[in-house]
Amino acid sequence: MPGFFRFFKGLNILLIFVPISGLLALYFKQPLWIFVSAALAIVPLAGLMGESTEELAKHLGPQWGGLVNATFGNATELIIGLFALHQGLLELVRASIIGSVIGNILLVMGAAVLCGGIKNGAQQFNRDHARSQGLNLLLAVVSLAVPAIFAANVGTAHIKAAPLRNLSVGVSLLLLATYIASLAFSWSRREEHMHAQEVQEDLPGWTRPLAYTVLAIASLGISIESELLVRSVEGATRAIGVNQLFVGIIIVPIIGNAAEHSTAVTMALKNKMDIAMSIAVGSSTQVAMFVAPVLVLASVALGHSLSYIFSVPELTAVGFAVIIAAFLANDGKSHWLYGAQLLSAYAIIALAFYFLPFP
Amino acid sequence: MPGFFRFFKGLNILLIFVPISGLLALYFKQPLWIFVSAALAIVPLAGLMGESTEELAKHLGPQWGGLVNATFGNATELIIGLFALHQGLLELVRASIIGSVIGNILLVMGAAVLCGGIKNGAQQFNRDHARSQGLNLLLAVVSLAVPAIFAANVGTAHIKAAPLRNLSVGVSLLLLATYIASLAFSWSRREEHMHAQEVQEDLPGWTRPLAYTVLAIASLGISIESELLVRSVEGATRAIGVNQLFVGIIIVPIIGNAAEHSTAVTMALKNKMDIAMSIAVGSSTQVAMFVAPVLVLASVALGHSLSYIFSVPELTAVGFAVIIAAFLANDGKSHWLYGAQLLSAYAIIALAFYFLPFP
Amino acid sequence: MPGFFRFFKGLNILLIFVPISGLLALYFKQPLWIFVSAALAIVPLAGLMGESTEELAKHLGPQWGGLVNATFGNATELIIGLFALHQGLLELVRASIIGSVIGNILLVMGAAVLCGGIKNGAQQFNRDHARSQGLNLLLAVVSLAVPAIFAANVGTAHIKAAPLRNLSVGVSLLLLATYIASLAFSWSRREEHMHAQEVQEDLPGWTRPLAYTVLAIASLGISIESELLVRSVEGATRAIGVNQLFVGIIIVPIIGNAAEHSTAVTMALKNKMDIAMSIAVGSSTQVAMFVAPVLVLASVALGHSLSYIFSVPELTAVGFAVIIAAFLANDGKSHWLYGAQLLSAYAIIALAFYFLPFP
Repeated sequence: MPGFFRFFKGLNILLIFVPISGLLALYFKQPLWIFVSAALAIVPLAGLMGESTEELAKHLGPQWGGLVNATFGNATELIIGLFALHQGLLELVRASIIGSVIGNILLVMGAAVLCGGIKNGAQQFNRDHARSQGLNLLLAVVSLAVPAIFAANVGTAHIKAAPLRNLSVGVSLLLLATYIASLAFSWSRREEHMHAQEVQEDLPGWTRPLAYTVLAIASLGISIESELLVRSVEGATRAIGVNQLFVGIIIVPIIGNAAEHSTAVTMALKNKMDIAMSIAVGSSTQVAMFVAPVLVLASVALGHSLSYIFSVPELTAVGFAVIIAAFLANDGKSHWLYGAQLLSAYAIIALAFYFLPFP
Repeated sequence: MPGFFRFFKGLNILLIFVPISGLLALYFKQPLWIFVSAALAIVPLAGLMGESTEELAKHLGPQWGGLVNATFGNATELIIGLFALHQGLLELVRASIIGSVIGNILLVMGAAVLCGGIKNGAQQFNRDHARSQGLNLLLAVVSLAVPAIFAANVGTAHIKAAPLRNLSVGVSLLLLATYIASLAFSWSRREEHMHAQEVQEDLPGWTRPLAYTVLAIASLGISIESELLVRSVEGATRAIGVNQLFVGIIIVPIIGNAAEHSTAVTMALKNKMDIAMSIAVGSSTQVAMFVAPVLVLASVALGHSLSYIFSVPELTAVGFAVIIAAFLANDGKSHWLYGAQLLSAYAIIALAFYFLPFP
Repeated sequence: MPGFFRFFKGLNILLIFVPISGLLALYFKQPLWIFVSAALAIVPLAGLMGESTEELAKHLGPQWGGLVNATFGNATELIIGLFALHQGLLELVRASIIGSVIGNILLVMGAAVLCGGIKNGAQQFNRDHARSQGLNLLLAVVSLAVPAIFAANVGTAHIKAAPLRNLSVGVSLLLLATYIASLAFSWSRREEHMHAQEVQEDLPGWTRPLAYTVLAIASLGISIESELLVRSVEGATRAIGVNQLFVGIIIVPIIGNAAEHSTAVTMALKNKMDIAMSIAVGSSTQVAMFVAPVLVLASVALGHSLSYIFSVPELTAVGFAVIIAAFLANDGKSHWLYGAQLLSAYAIIALAFYFLPFP
């Protein structure tokens, strides 16, 4: 995929923000600039992590490679989440989970459909495959949403900590079990799902040690920048006067998903809508079924307890996004107007989180 | 379309209510009778406006004609809305927006499917086209619903006027931009969408001056009757003891949509289900993407500020209607049972607005 | 269907709990054991009722047989509901209505899809038929949900008894009318719906008097056991410390649907997914359109008044289940992963009702 490559070569210029964010953190201590530079530094690091993961996957063969891909696919979101958890920013973590799901569907898919449609006209994709992915996403998000709706009914003031923690742990284990089942399922019929346009060059471009080294360095870099990002978020939001929920829902997921975003757009421009849809929907599903439960279980282990108690606007936004994704997947074709509509829906949701954030 | 014509010739007898409503308003001053006669007068006037718009569109050619059709297609709702806005009846305006969306889907489509199904048995329609229209409607209604859900979460008492107005204006501009994009889109592929059964006789039946004259007179008539309708609505609702929300949700949209209603049923009877579905779904979409934002922007200009803060039952009703429409569109065929079910769902929603209207 | 037969022969061993529950009720008076033994006794009785109904239907011919099948198909739920109503356990009745809808979709369909998929790999079913059934279910459940959402908006404290009862009666009559319309519809095109794999051996295996006798005895048995079940439910829930809502949502429907459950799984194992889906979706639809309104009308006649005022978690659970069913039906094929996901969603909902039941 040379075009994809070149694009990342372009984004790699942002690596300059790795040292810049470090210097700002050490000497200037202005949270807003630390936040912005750390955010910009994460974008190319996430790209490198993705690239090294893919290279490693080719060395490891389909089974283990698939597992590595599945685990590191949303590693950036996971790492940012863990640091935010460590700082006790539970609202931010929950918001970034929701924001990642809706960002992948409305923003990433919207941009891919719009750009692809403008360049290529009406685009076809495999309806059966997209439909299954849409149904997976729907089931994942329904599971994610159940505890919050029950808790909203009981009333936050009357919820006792113990049953809520038990429910969160139970839901997490069920989601992870289903996630593992879905990996096993996709392994068992890998051949069926590999239709023509998805065949990838399976020759590794990197040596195995290089892939490991880049993966390790990128992960370390993302960890450091995530720490800077999370520590500066409160100061940064005060400085520009936006609310923290908006940052969690809109800004953090854009940073974490920048790599998926550019890949999906590149694939759509190449008229490979199946891959573009897979990236957007699959990434949302992975956040709901893997990132979210891991963060919940980690929080219980760390003594905080992150619950699945999302707010009503968060649930609404994610519910809308998933229903839209399911119907779009069912359509089997896309054109630029759908892209424009998805982006418009995203902008409206972003406006609402900007203007009417808190109860 | 001679049958359609004859039908309207039949409805034209209701034009007698134009002078009747004027006389009642001047001399008798009983709100209920003014309301009823103005409502009956609007029905044939809306029909004449639709007919003259279509004739004009034939003279103007596809592009400009399409724009005229799109703008005047829901002009009756828009005019009634503007007069209600002028009287400060914000609840009534919001209710009639919602009522128009659900009325077009459940009542108009339900009647068309039921009548068509009884006469013609199972009816096919173009699934791809219907699916795209259903997705458009879904995206429009989601956008429309976002502000209300966020506002409900904040609590009506805690919402400040300025951010709410900014949000409403932002949502309106995004909806209108998407609406314009969708017009551009449909122009760009007009040929594709014109499948066999939709080919219309493009020879104008009226001269251009006649079309302009009828359009002008019908618009003027609708304006006068809307003014009478809106001024008498409060007295009329008191007189028969129904709540104003019921009038806004059920009665006003039936008046405003009578023309679409009869056309959709006529088309279904002729086994042209594609046109019947297009009218019902397209009309709902137009209300959400064009009429609603224009009314909101107009209200801000007029110093009232109509917001998108619909009530929970309104949101629920419109959400159900849209999901039903999307699944029905996806089915690709219809039979009388669907029609009966749509009408039953409409009747249940109407009963609920009648018996349990207010918080 | 010899396999199905043998399975029931196996379950018939549970008939031993008919005398056991009687003895426990007369002499031991421990509610928990009465509850458990009555529950176990109902399972084979419901199976016998189903078998005798089918045999009778063969004697009566398609029209009257269809009516008998439709009426007795969910007779167990109806009988338990009537006894619970008589004891004034309105919450339990409402919960068991919702639980029956979600249990049929998530648990029964989930188990069928999982078992069938493990044995047979990917399974196809008639998408058109499934889609129509999904739309029927959607329309039924929307109608069921409307009153509760309006009542939630008004606030339980402010609802007056009279309009609520009028609304409930109105909704019930509309649902029953639509149900009758749907029976008429399915009679009118019985042939179309009978595709290859659904052809049943129409030779009765029992004589008509035998069928009547078994039906009468099974109905009587279910009535007696339902009475025992309902009388012991409060004591039993206290004894094991679960809430009554959980019993209504999860336990009672499992008992009432055991026959559907085993038939659906058997059919899925035989790769007859059309029948398995029909049983699960059809049974849910029947509960919403026939059992629920009959119980509401009966309650008004009995002087209690059961309303359609379901709680928010109940509505959410049923809404999720129906959306999932509609998208799954639309997929046209199933594999074991879907089954695992449906069961996981069911388990998550059950956990939520267990841990966070009450407002």
